[in-house]
Amino acid sequence: MKLTVGIIGAGRIGQLHVDNLQLIPQIRVKSVSDVVTDHLGSWASSKKIDVLTTDYHDLLNDEEIDAVFICSPTTTHATIIKEAAAAGKHIFCEKPVSFSVEETEAALAEVEKAGVKLQVGFNRRFDPNFRKIRAIVQNGEIGQPHILRITSRDPQPPGIDYIKSSGGLFMDMTIHDFDMARYIMGSEVVEVSAYGAVLVDPAIGEAGDIDTAVISLKFANGALGVIDNSRRAAYGYDQRLEIFGDKGAAQAENNRATTVEVSTADHVAKEKPLYFFLERYTQAYIDEVTEFAFACLENGMVTCSGFDGLQAERIAKAAKKSLETGVPVRLQQEASPTVI
Amino acid sequence: MKLTVGIIGAGRIGQLHVDNLQLIPQIRVKSVSDVVTDHLGSWASSKKIDVLTTDYHDLLNDEEIDAVFICSPTTTHATIIKEAAAAGKHIFCEKPVSFSVEETEAALAEVEKAGVKLQVGFNRRFDPNFRKIRAIVQNGEIGQPHILRITSRDPQPPGIDYIKSSGGLFMDMTIHDFDMARYIMGSEVVEVSAYGAVLVDPAIGEAGDIDTAVISLKFANGALGVIDNSRRAAYGYDQRLEIFGDKGAAQAENNRATTVEVSTADHVAKEKPLYFFLERYTQAYIDEVTEFAFACLENGMVTCSGFDGLQAERIAKAAKKSLETGVPVRLQQEASPTVI
Amino acid sequence: MKLTVGIIGAGRIGQLHVDNLQLIPQIRVKSVSDVVTDHLGSWASSKKIDVLTTDYHDLLNDEEIDAVFICSPTTTHATIIKEAAAAGKHIFCEKPVSFSVEETEAALAEVEKAGVKLQVGFNRRFDPNFRKIRAIVQNGEIGQPHILRITSRDPQPPGIDYIKSSGGLFMDMTIHDFDMARYIMGSEVVEVSAYGAVLVDPAIGEAGDIDTAVISLKFANGALGVIDNSRRAAYGYDQRLEIFGDKGAAQAENNRATTVEVSTADHVAKEKPLYFFLERYTQAYIDEVTEFAFACLENGMVTCSGFDGLQAERIAKAAKKSLETGVPVRLQQEASPTVI
Amino acid sequence: MKLTVGIIGAGRIGQLHVDNLQLIPQIRVKSVSDVVTDHLGSWASSKKIDVLTTDYHDLLNDEEIDAVFICSPTTTHATIIKEAAAAGKHIFCEKPVSFSVEETEAALAEVEKAGVKLQVGFNRRFDPNFRKIRAIVQNGEIGQPHILRITSRDPQPPGIDYIKSSGGLFMDMTIHDFDMARYIMGSEVVEVSAYGAVLVDPAIGEAGDIDTAVISLKFANGALGVIDNSRRAAYGYDQRLEIFGDKGAAQAENNRATTVEVSTADHVAKEKPLYFFLERYTQAYIDEVTEFAFACLENGMVTCSGFDGLQAERIAKAAKKSLETGVPVRLQQEASPTVI
Repeated sequence: MKLTVGIIGAGRIGQLHVDNLQLIPQIRVKSVSDVVTDHLGSWASSKKIDVLTTDYHDLLNDEEIDAVFICSPTTTHATIIKEAAAAGKHIFCEKPVSFSVEETEAALAEVEKAGVKLQVGFNRRFDPNFRKIRAIVQNGEIGQPHILRITSRDPQPPGIDYIKSSGGLFMDMTIHDFDMARYIMGSEVVEVSAYGAVLVDPAIGEAGDIDTAVISLKFANGALGVIDNSRRAAYGYDQRLEIFGDKGAAQAENNRATTVEVSTADHVAKEKPLYFFLERYTQAYIDEVTEFAFACLENGMVTCSGFDGLQAERIAKAAKKSLETGVPVRLQQEASPTVI
Repeated sequence: MKLTVGIIGAGRIGQLHVDNLQLIPQIRVKSVSDVVTDHLGSWASSKKIDVLTTDYHDLLNDEEIDAVFICSPTTTHATIIKEAAAAGKHIFCEKPVSFSVEETEAALAEVEKAGVKLQVGFNRRFDPNFRKIRAIVQNGEIGQPHILRITSRDPQPPGIDYIKSSGGLFMDMTIHDFDMARYIMGSEVVEVSAYGAVLVDPAIGEAGDIDTAVISLKFANGALGVIDNSRRAAYGYDQRLEIFGDKGAAQAENNRATTVEVSTADHVAKEKPLYFFLERYTQAYIDEVTEFAFACLENGMVTCSGFDGLQAERIAKAAKKSLETGVPVRLQQEASPTVI
Repeated sequence: MKLTVGIIGAGRIGQLHVDNLQLIPQIRVKSVSDVVTDHLGSWASSKKIDVLTTDYHDLLNDEEIDAVFICSPTTTHATIIKEAAAAGKHIFCEKPVSFSVEETEAALAEVEKAGVKLQVGFNRRFDPNFRKIRAIVQNGEIGQPHILRITSRDPQPPGIDYIKSSGGLFMDMTIHDFDMARYIMGSEVVEVSAYGAVLVDPAIGEAGDIDTAVISLKFANGALGVIDNSRRAAYGYDQRLEIFGDKGAAQAENNRATTVEVSTADHVAKEKPLYFFLERYTQAYIDEVTEFAFACLENGMVTCSGFDGLQAERIAKAAKKSLETGVPVRLQQEASPTVI
Repeated sequence: MKLTVGIIGAGRIGQLHVDNLQLIPQIRVKSVSDVVTDHLGSWASSKKIDVLTTDYHDLLNDEEIDAVFICSPTTTHATIIKEAAAAGKHIFCEKPVSFSVEETEAALAEVEKAGVKLQVGFNRRFDPNFRKIRAIVQNGEIGQPHILRITSRDPQPPGIDYIKSSGGLFMDMTIHDFDMARYIMGSEVVEVSAYGAVLVDPAIGEAGDIDTAVISLKFANGALGVIDNSRRAAYGYDQRLEIFGDKGAAQAENNRATTVEVSTADHVAKEKPLYFFLERYTQAYIDEVTEFAFACLENGMVTCSGFDGLQAERIAKAAKKSLETGVPVRLQQEASPTVI
């Protein structure tokens, strides 16, 4: 049994998915679309991709294709999801699903109607460290959770142009942490209170965004949480997490390239955290597409659903509103479009 | 040159100060007062204390006594400070100075008028780990601070009777962290937003207090901070801190009884954090009284002043108000009595 | 440019090499031989291997084949090397080259005459931790090396049948450490003194072997070294190393599946070392065949030569002699066949 | 009940013992002797020592004195022990007891005849890390011991004059590790094989000593051990240990001044090991004299007996012989004076 796949959007992440999908014998990556394909010819042929097109509808109209990966800009996601669902394709969509909760809800409605799979690309759920933490929480090793702490700091801010179209720190970067918070806690966020600042680069502030944040969370199970973010950690990509409960705590440290420690007259030094997100989450990126593929092939559950994507967006919206209004914002549990 | 000292309140912490003061050759602990002294006779004589009295005024009226340690219940602090200042004694006062910002201010005014030293017992400032972190921040090693994270969890909640008269979690426990935040950041807190919960013991909630908290802070220098608290960590006394800045980050881990690590078929395990606060802060308790003594003897600066005590109380009050009102509370920089 | 490869011996390690070679676009694995192939048909076809044969000469006689991987039993290595060299094939040979220094020397002489590449399968040289350590030594970060410590312990002893034909602990297991010692120190071993014991399983003693060892080394540069071995570490595969020099020390710790640490009332526990050698050295196995392939394609140097294989055998022989005689054994620097 | 104590030899270690003994309420340090006392007057009076003398016999003849601490040069130990035993004094003697196994045996015979306590100053037995390791071994947590590894490196070599009269590396420095080996293993050393080198300072070689060593041990219980030593570790005082058994392993890491870790663009660095032996073993020095005092007061067992001192010397002698002869040296279990 084989799954034939098409990739919509062949930027950095689209090309990464191609590489990872080609590690799976049951997968054939048949087609790739992008708005411009001139520069992609030799890459596509080296990857033995049969169809390279500027029109993603070619993929949706191809009966051989079972599933599409939507790696195009966020503003296009909702439309393509609806069209892909209508065409009966399973869908893997990069995060966020859209910048609008209403649009996301509309897209998810189409997915549900069509009965296709939809997985949202919250890759960190597949990271071995965080998976282990989740398993520890689920099996009761730390008891009832009380406090969740997530530290998530990038090594470098993206360019200002990217910032401007990113949807803002909460929708672009913290959204991963909002999803992680739900994933680890196993409970919905019911209130969010956000503090933000521009400390890394004034140009980010001029672009209307923040680069540093501390966000407090209340969960439906009564637990509390906190996320801290920075767009620039001098020492590399900082991705840590701790969950504290009535029987103990579990924490995940950063990954390093080697275990080597050097002791000299100056200091005792170990390696810095892995710097680049593709390096830090290498295994997570492989596992997310592998599990999606097998969910399609074997009609299984996806690990990160459209609803998960929607909820993360809702929290991001609430965080933004909290930042703007200076007061905490509650989220309603009923997923009605008017909540935030 | 010698400093003659009297102790007001001979409970656990008062007795600890006696032990630590007696390690210093320049110190003579002459007198001890407590409301009940019947049980203290053999202890006092074993410590070679000349005067044991139920009336602390005996100490204030003793011309030989240069300095008093106020280790009595918080409700008595402000009155005794005022009297001790009037008597020209240097003062070491346990935290908090009082439960009322106004009372504290009134007491500090008397101290200022009298020109005596006043040190507030924020012992953690003297902990080698946190001192090192402060030095790292001060010497610019991590650059301009952006984010401060403090984790502070007790191994066990105190009894409900204590809770009822404690002033609440923020005034009793978090006040240490509020002081630490100012100490490490080197900048005042200008806004506080508090989340609290009762997750450890419902009886704490019935007593009108919380046992779990996440508190966000804004500092005058633009940086953000977060403190998380629990009244009960199953694995022991958890006292960690991280400061993140534009050149890097510095973090302090828990202390452990030994460096031993055991690897078996089950796990690789190291020691739990030191469980008891007197064990964890042994050196800090010694250093705080030593430095106070030398500040008195050599007319030096105290490391933790009355103003430091006042500011921590103000933040605690603001945190409580934030918890009650559900919105962030701003602190005015001018230390006027009407701020909060 | 392509390298066409044949595999001689399709056991666990032969099959692993096939998987890793097929990650390299420039490699074609054309043929596989084994003494019995009945069970290999579906595996070979799933790997798209064209030729499956019981006679490795079919590979040597195939003009398309540029290089062979010798993964057959050690007793066959020398003969096949000589034949492969005569056939002009590049050679990757699993360790040890042979159980006899004379045989190895004879085989290396044929390789030299034929001018083909020979790489010996000391996979650990390619491990990121140990490579980093070597780089640190080479760039002078720890100064002149004084002491090398290697801890190398297996998670489980092999079966007694394997033990009997293994050449003994030093030739089978410690040989990796002897090679590592030379690789890290960048200097030859000139004397070896071995202590051995049977502590894991008496059956190993009955088979004429030991299961526990401490081996001291003297290097040509004047430095000292020590290796400790066990056939069974209850907590997993234990592979650590430390090099100490006049400017400092560098050490490599074990690898673990995740960075997760769990704190409970019982203990603070982290993951055990990776248990299985294929898991621990995943990257090393990939890198050793990749670098061999490119050495063949680009006429480069191999990282682990036939001479390296020979020297490790000489040290293993000396260690065995030291164990048997109870005294240290010197190795002559001139690689004459009569040294040991 | 009180123990009155005299100190023979008021160098660095003698003065340290005075400080530590004065922490114990049950101890009175009455007298101190040294060959020259001119410079000791103000020190002695600041310590409230009643008798300062150049003749240690004044202490032995003082009926008030219950116990003496022998902190004079090693060459004087045996004579003073015999005299002190004859005078009925309990004895704490710095290591080594003497440079001659015969002399030590003769001294121990007098101690036994007199029925006084004798404790030898192997302070490291009292270190919390190593005590914990011993407890873990004793309670069976790591099962039957197989391999012991001790790393023991000084931060700086002593002066050449000291080296010349030190008895050599094994008798001066490694003797601590030989004692530690017996203490942790709970089994006698039966054979020793020593490698030595002069790598730190040629002047040490010219003085007839070595500065770098690797020593292999066989124990009576069948286990193996290895000690590595250097007179100079650039990064500080390096004192680590690992015991490996059939159920697991336990290791003790170095102690550091704080738990602080700093992450910057350059590295992730923690504190170096504590540099100075008095700092590293602060608690051990306190505990060794405290336990000796209570063994005297309560007629208890000493933790480190004269026999322990003798055995460590025997191993040191055997190691020296091994170094000189180039072959391993066996120790007989019967403690006859002719063994080595």
